[in-house]
Amino acid sequence: MADRIEKDLIGEKLIEDPSYIGINTARALENFNLKSKTVNLNLIKDIALIKKAAAMVNKNLKKLPVEKADAIIQASDEVVDGKFDCEFRVSAFQGGAGTSTNMNVNEVIANRAIEILGGEKGDYSIIHPLNDVNMSQSTNDVYPTGLRIAAIRLIRKLSNSLADLQEALQIKENEFSDIIKLGRTQLMDALPMMIGQGFGAYAKAVERDRWRIYKVEERLRQVNLGGTAIGTGLNATNKFIYMITDVIQDLTKLGIARSDFPMDITQNCDVFVEVSGLLKSCSVNLLKISNDLRLLGSGPKGGIGELKLPEVQAGSTIMPGKVNPVIAEMAGQVSMRVIANDSAITLASSMGQLELNAFTPLIAESLLESLELLNNAVIIFRERCIEGIKANEEKCKENLEKSTAMVTALVHHIGYDKSSEIAKQALREGKTIREILYEENILPKEKIDEILNPFEVTRPGIPGK
Amino acid sequence: MADRIEKDLIGEKLIEDPSYIGINTARALENFNLKSKTVNLNLIKDIALIKKAAAMVNKNLKKLPVEKADAIIQASDEVVDGKFDCEFRVSAFQGGAGTSTNMNVNEVIANRAIEILGGEKGDYSIIHPLNDVNMSQSTNDVYPTGLRIAAIRLIRKLSNSLADLQEALQIKENEFSDIIKLGRTQLMDALPMMIGQGFGAYAKAVERDRWRIYKVEERLRQVNLGGTAIGTGLNATNKFIYMITDVIQDLTKLGIARSDFPMDITQNCDVFVEVSGLLKSCSVNLLKISNDLRLLGSGPKGGIGELKLPEVQAGSTIMPGKVNPVIAEMAGQVSMRVIANDSAITLASSMGQLELNAFTPLIAESLLESLELLNNAVIIFRERCIEGIKANEEKCKENLEKSTAMVTALVHHIGYDKSSEIAKQALREGKTIREILYEENILPKEKIDEILNPFEVTRPGIPGK
Amino acid sequence: MADRIEKDLIGEKLIEDPSYIGINTARALENFNLKSKTVNLNLIKDIALIKKAAAMVNKNLKKLPVEKADAIIQASDEVVDGKFDCEFRVSAFQGGAGTSTNMNVNEVIANRAIEILGGEKGDYSIIHPLNDVNMSQSTNDVYPTGLRIAAIRLIRKLSNSLADLQEALQIKENEFSDIIKLGRTQLMDALPMMIGQGFGAYAKAVERDRWRIYKVEERLRQVNLGGTAIGTGLNATNKFIYMITDVIQDLTKLGIARSDFPMDITQNCDVFVEVSGLLKSCSVNLLKISNDLRLLGSGPKGGIGELKLPEVQAGSTIMPGKVNPVIAEMAGQVSMRVIANDSAITLASSMGQLELNAFTPLIAESLLESLELLNNAVIIFRERCIEGIKANEEKCKENLEKSTAMVTALVHHIGYDKSSEIAKQALREGKTIREILYEENILPKEKIDEILNPFEVTRPGIPGK
Amino acid sequence: MADRIEKDLIGEKLIEDPSYIGINTARALENFNLKSKTVNLNLIKDIALIKKAAAMVNKNLKKLPVEKADAIIQASDEVVDGKFDCEFRVSAFQGGAGTSTNMNVNEVIANRAIEILGGEKGDYSIIHPLNDVNMSQSTNDVYPTGLRIAAIRLIRKLSNSLADLQEALQIKENEFSDIIKLGRTQLMDALPMMIGQGFGAYAKAVERDRWRIYKVEERLRQVNLGGTAIGTGLNATNKFIYMITDVIQDLTKLGIARSDFPMDITQNCDVFVEVSGLLKSCSVNLLKISNDLRLLGSGPKGGIGELKLPEVQAGSTIMPGKVNPVIAEMAGQVSMRVIANDSAITLASSMGQLELNAFTPLIAESLLESLELLNNAVIIFRERCIEGIKANEEKCKENLEKSTAMVTALVHHIGYDKSSEIAKQALREGKTIREILYEENILPKEKIDEILNPFEVTRPGIPGK
Repeated sequence: MADRIEKDLIGEKLIEDPSYIGINTARALENFNLKSKTVNLNLIKDIALIKKAAAMVNKNLKKLPVEKADAIIQASDEVVDGKFDCEFRVSAFQGGAGTSTNMNVNEVIANRAIEILGGEKGDYSIIHPLNDVNMSQSTNDVYPTGLRIAAIRLIRKLSNSLADLQEALQIKENEFSDIIKLGRTQLMDALPMMIGQGFGAYAKAVERDRWRIYKVEERLRQVNLGGTAIGTGLNATNKFIYMITDVIQDLTKLGIARSDFPMDITQNCDVFVEVSGLLKSCSVNLLKISNDLRLLGSGPKGGIGELKLPEVQAGSTIMPGKVNPVIAEMAGQVSMRVIANDSAITLASSMGQLELNAFTPLIAESLLESLELLNNAVIIFRERCIEGIKANEEKCKENLEKSTAMVTALVHHIGYDKSSEIAKQALREGKTIREILYEENILPKEKIDEILNPFEVTRPGIPGK
Repeated sequence: MADRIEKDLIGEKLIEDPSYIGINTARALENFNLKSKTVNLNLIKDIALIKKAAAMVNKNLKKLPVEKADAIIQASDEVVDGKFDCEFRVSAFQGGAGTSTNMNVNEVIANRAIEILGGEKGDYSIIHPLNDVNMSQSTNDVYPTGLRIAAIRLIRKLSNSLADLQEALQIKENEFSDIIKLGRTQLMDALPMMIGQGFGAYAKAVERDRWRIYKVEERLRQVNLGGTAIGTGLNATNKFIYMITDVIQDLTKLGIARSDFPMDITQNCDVFVEVSGLLKSCSVNLLKISNDLRLLGSGPKGGIGELKLPEVQAGSTIMPGKVNPVIAEMAGQVSMRVIANDSAITLASSMGQLELNAFTPLIAESLLESLELLNNAVIIFRERCIEGIKANEEKCKENLEKSTAMVTALVHHIGYDKSSEIAKQALREGKTIREILYEENILPKEKIDEILNPFEVTRPGIPGK
Repeated sequence: MADRIEKDLIGEKLIEDPSYIGINTARALENFNLKSKTVNLNLIKDIALIKKAAAMVNKNLKKLPVEKADAIIQASDEVVDGKFDCEFRVSAFQGGAGTSTNMNVNEVIANRAIEILGGEKGDYSIIHPLNDVNMSQSTNDVYPTGLRIAAIRLIRKLSNSLADLQEALQIKENEFSDIIKLGRTQLMDALPMMIGQGFGAYAKAVERDRWRIYKVEERLRQVNLGGTAIGTGLNATNKFIYMITDVIQDLTKLGIARSDFPMDITQNCDVFVEVSGLLKSCSVNLLKISNDLRLLGSGPKGGIGELKLPEVQAGSTIMPGKVNPVIAEMAGQVSMRVIANDSAITLASSMGQLELNAFTPLIAESLLESLELLNNAVIIFRERCIEGIKANEEKCKENLEKSTAMVTALVHHIGYDKSSEIAKQALREGKTIREILYEENILPKEKIDEILNPFEVTRPGIPGK
Repeated sequence: MADRIEKDLIGEKLIEDPSYIGINTARALENFNLKSKTVNLNLIKDIALIKKAAAMVNKNLKKLPVEKADAIIQASDEVVDGKFDCEFRVSAFQGGAGTSTNMNVNEVIANRAIEILGGEKGDYSIIHPLNDVNMSQSTNDVYPTGLRIAAIRLIRKLSNSLADLQEALQIKENEFSDIIKLGRTQLMDALPMMIGQGFGAYAKAVERDRWRIYKVEERLRQVNLGGTAIGTGLNATNKFIYMITDVIQDLTKLGIARSDFPMDITQNCDVFVEVSGLLKSCSVNLLKISNDLRLLGSGPKGGIGELKLPEVQAGSTIMPGKVNPVIAEMAGQVSMRVIANDSAITLASSMGQLELNAFTPLIAESLLESLELLNNAVIIFRERCIEGIKANEEKCKENLEKSTAMVTALVHHIGYDKSSEIAKQALREGKTIREILYEENILPKEKIDEILNPFEVTRPGIPGK
């Protein structure tokens, strides 16, 4: 075993043993030496899967000798299994529309396959990264296909996590279905409601997220494999084109299908904008819910304090006993990051030109990060926040009774203007609505009690009528 | 006819005749005196429609006397017909979650209805803006419902305009189906293609936009009418709740339906983020297409120059004869505005708190502007740009022949490395691929001609095999 | 007076009397018929000012006859004075990098000047929109210069409004300098503070905004007048180039100066991104402050309720007596709009190509709207919200006493862990920190009182040491 | 050496040897188990530096025994030197406003200091993470100070890198100062210019970036050390407050100074928005320049092709010989990422509440990533792209001669309308402007040659006059 010299049209480079990379990867490591995040491994592995599928098809079509094909297939499996994770260190923000990532996979698989066949790494006469591993493919069909497969896998995870979150919220909806509290609009005291109703509203929003994300998977299933460089299919035989997608579908069972117009898929990135837009909708809900919970849990004494969020860690290095809503804050930050990633995806997608979008690596990085972060955040948010929320019934009652929330129930009995005056008076004199009504003798006491029954005022209808 | 004094809990205000507004509108005009855009009239008119529907239901339920109801219905119709457009001048960026807009409609309808009944404007003993016009309603159910109806109407227009655009692109796909040109990836010479194929790819993207926008209408159809202030339905009778949505549906035929959980609709704005996200996807495609057309039409002599865009106006105040792609530039700018509006919608939606989102006026303004702008831009882009595009066949041919685009067709015959050398040689010596091949005698002449047939290289398969 | 036919290289168009526009404007009205906002009048007027200045210089240089120059000067003044506002109706989102706006100004001034000279509108042999009004100019130097001047004027207004806001906040800082309340971090009870300190922190933030916006004016002062189409200065004589900027400076007194590299100014828009970025910083502060005030003013009974915001309008169409923080909500929405406009400016600026940015109309519209909105919002926010804020001392005291905010003062006396236990105990048993300390006999009573003196704990140092 | 049990108010946790973390870090690893990026090490190291400074001051003030202080100082130095990088694995998107990061540093330093003093990790009776390492500090003053110091260091690097980029562009400005080419506005043929002038315009833009970023450092120098939890300074002695910032300044020499209103710094994040806004301006320029270079380098045969960008790696896995502008594409993607990070910073900053912004970890992560990425991208862009750019003089000449760019030079001689006609004719007949002029006999031949001298038309003035 020894270091090796590889060469390309630009010149030569030393590759140090035992690395499995080749000269293209080596150049990419230098060219994009941003010391940043590296390419998402989910993407790497699904590109390796495509290499396996291509080798299977080319073996079947007798374009690749059985021995070579089998070595490529085995090497691809090993990449999928994570055995070569450390060989994929090119920056996520690489130029070249993913060519360096595709070459990185080609080279690692080629060198590993050479090794399997008993050769020495770098002896591409045995297995060639381009002529063999990349046979009938182009970065421009392999890369977006790998991205779609990786995204679908993560979408399914997220959809499931959202279903679990929805269920957890619905359990709280039931648990708190008869604890009355003050509802607020524009942060001002409004009308009475049950705590459970609030969680029900969150559950509905999350239900939509789950449905959207579940459905949008369809848009990602059409792939351009066989389209080669610009989607016209030059250099891919019709047999290859028909077979490759079927093999991918067999290997993944994800509903992958051949696009009837691969040139479209090769150049247009609107589907990624669509998916990211839905992740943004989901993030908006997550921000809303997590902000609400922080607000309702504020205090414990000097805030609204109607909910108690689970305590998961000490909150302060200086204020003893302080516990903060850190899980909700984490969920909020992940949401903002997803919103920011959507900006990146939108920008990159809108800057595509002619037959290809040169900025797909940024799209891939941003989309996969959003999917992973959101999935993990949703799981943690459910497990470490939602499921452990308790109600502070006493505080709920206190906040409601102090307010004038019930005055709206009077409008149908005494009119808007008079009701308004009573509300003002209650605030001015520090009395409850009920007290004013009793004193003012506007309605009989029984009627007042009937109208102001707080359980009546949390459902449709006109209390007392 | 004379000016009048109106009063509310804060104090008195002079309202000058012949204005139909009341004190709430007058205060809003002062409070939000931003000298900015005023509330979108589409929203005003669909809120007026809800007022009509509510009056119809309340008349039916005998909550409103026939005479009052009929006057409100007539006045509402007049607002819908645009007779009072000039009475709606409150800023689009008003605080209050739309209360001022709802009150503006209530007051104008009330005063017009009073007039119809022979009274004097301001005599709310005849028709009261709140007790009568707003009966059984709250801003918090009326406003988002009005927004949904207005949005659905514009969505239908946009969906139709996109269908027309798709068709126009497909006509060009056919018209240019046999004009060969150079395809480019990352702006570099890549492979041959037909001009028509490029338009086909655009048409596919627009087809997705049309479908998305057509489908997303469903999400807007569920309304929270009858939910009143926080969605619990306090002060709206069950009869009213069931009837009001049916009447709206009768009046609009837009598929409007009652939400089974109005509290959700009252506080969550994710559906607007979803719709706006799809408008953003559409804008990304529009930017891509318009940028491509500007690029392909660049020149006329010193650029790519493969397309000729219609000349619609003189282009320069200093350079005689210069004509610019102004329609494509307009489409690009509208797209960017829609993307920016999406930021506003995302921000505003994510900042909702508890039972209501205080920032719905910004959401409404941004969403309706995006829909209107996009619809108009799509129509103009089709009529004044797409439909008149001509091909510059000579330039197409010249660009293709000068390039090494055909060299990829050789890979299956002579391998990647050798092909690569020939490409380099062609560029270095200023010769065509064909010339090099003839000279180098690598393949028989007939084989070379068979492989390099440009019409073969724009479709799937391996030319010469 | 009669309608007239005008023609250009594309063909003929009927212009209806009494309009002052010409065929270029007429075409632009059709081409960009987006039914959207029209070009900001501040921009129109400062472009007219440049026309005046150019006529003055060309008269001086004897390039324009005195009579023609004087007519152009008078006509320009009338446009500046707003007499022809209704003639400027081209969409703000026009293509053409501002050419239509420049031509609109050229044509209106030409026709008015013709009229002044006794001719008939459309008789361009008397005054030609291009040869005379646009003499030595190009859209590409006039338009960005007009934008810079208009922006500087609005920046000065905003800077003054921010100074007033800062002062108003400082007045509140003093007014509330000795009202103690609970400080909160992450919405949880933290340490005691004075209400005034909170306003002081707001004032500091606004002070930075004011300073930034005041300083950034410098960046806008360099203009490219005389650079003509691409900044090289072709067709502008050196004399004209030197004189025109001096005249503009004389007319405006805004520090306008000639760029030493006009080609830079013609194509690069980073300065607008810089200005907009600072407006975004300002908006972030405005959002933070307005959100805080809404939070501190929440209630009035069931929220934090430590501040009372001025009541400026009735808050609900259904809940009597409800008053909402509508001014703060307006300020928040304007802030979000400015943030969204920054997205548009960033996008448009980043998409500039080669010697010009084709999307300057979107930049102009977004920047000027942001400046106007922010200025008006800051004024209203000060007048109708900040200046009228009252403290609710009772609520401040109540929230503080219920909390464990004082426990931090114990850390130096009994250690972090013990302090933490006491805080937990206080919350568990519903007692105050002081009560626990008295009972537990950990420190002498006088020491406890010394440590827990709330006025000690709102300034640097260790109470009781 | 053995695993240890640590406990806090929530319960117990096993910490496995040889880890230096404590229970707070262990909980954070679980609570924020997002499998995402971990906290930026630049931030960790500058927080460790603050720990050192605090120990120095507390030793000086005799609050910490010499032995303990020295151990803390040594341990802090080791963290700064990167010896414990692997101990900092908490997610960058952690909740808690940085508390977990501060505790992570406290715990690692404490355990290392214990070790130095001969104790066993976890024996906090020797050195306590809070009582000793965090003495007189709070996350809320330490964390933002650490962020400011880390940001200043990166800002200085970026400022230098931009200076180098500016210089490289100016070298190209000189190198190409007499190569004439076609200038383009809106991608259409406009006027002649020198290649060098284009690079000069880029250099001017980068000069502004460099200046802005150099200047903005000032805004970050004011720190709130000693403000403790909410900026009031509770529990920090005045002596400590005065000394700590001086020590930090001694250790860093970065101009760090004490804020006169620490409460402002503790809660307001507008300065980070300001810095990020300038990074966005810089990114806009970088996008513009890199996009321009890709456009001017497009081809090599079928595009504009006026520049040749250095070839740094093979460009295609399928198209032999294709080389792509991958460095410019990388620069573009980094720019878009910085723009997206600005969205995150804006969102997070605008969502701060009351005395603290809970989302500072997202701000820190986004800001430091932007600074690092931009710095590295600027260096690579200069070294691997700008410095190696060559001009394609032949193509420059060809594009210019084919165009009608010279026609503008005729306006002063024959008027706008006639010039316009000649341009049209030239395009129609495929002739040059010069040819038409000769044939049409409009001006004497010598005059024509004088006017059309291309070197005259790239500078101010009227050729031929």
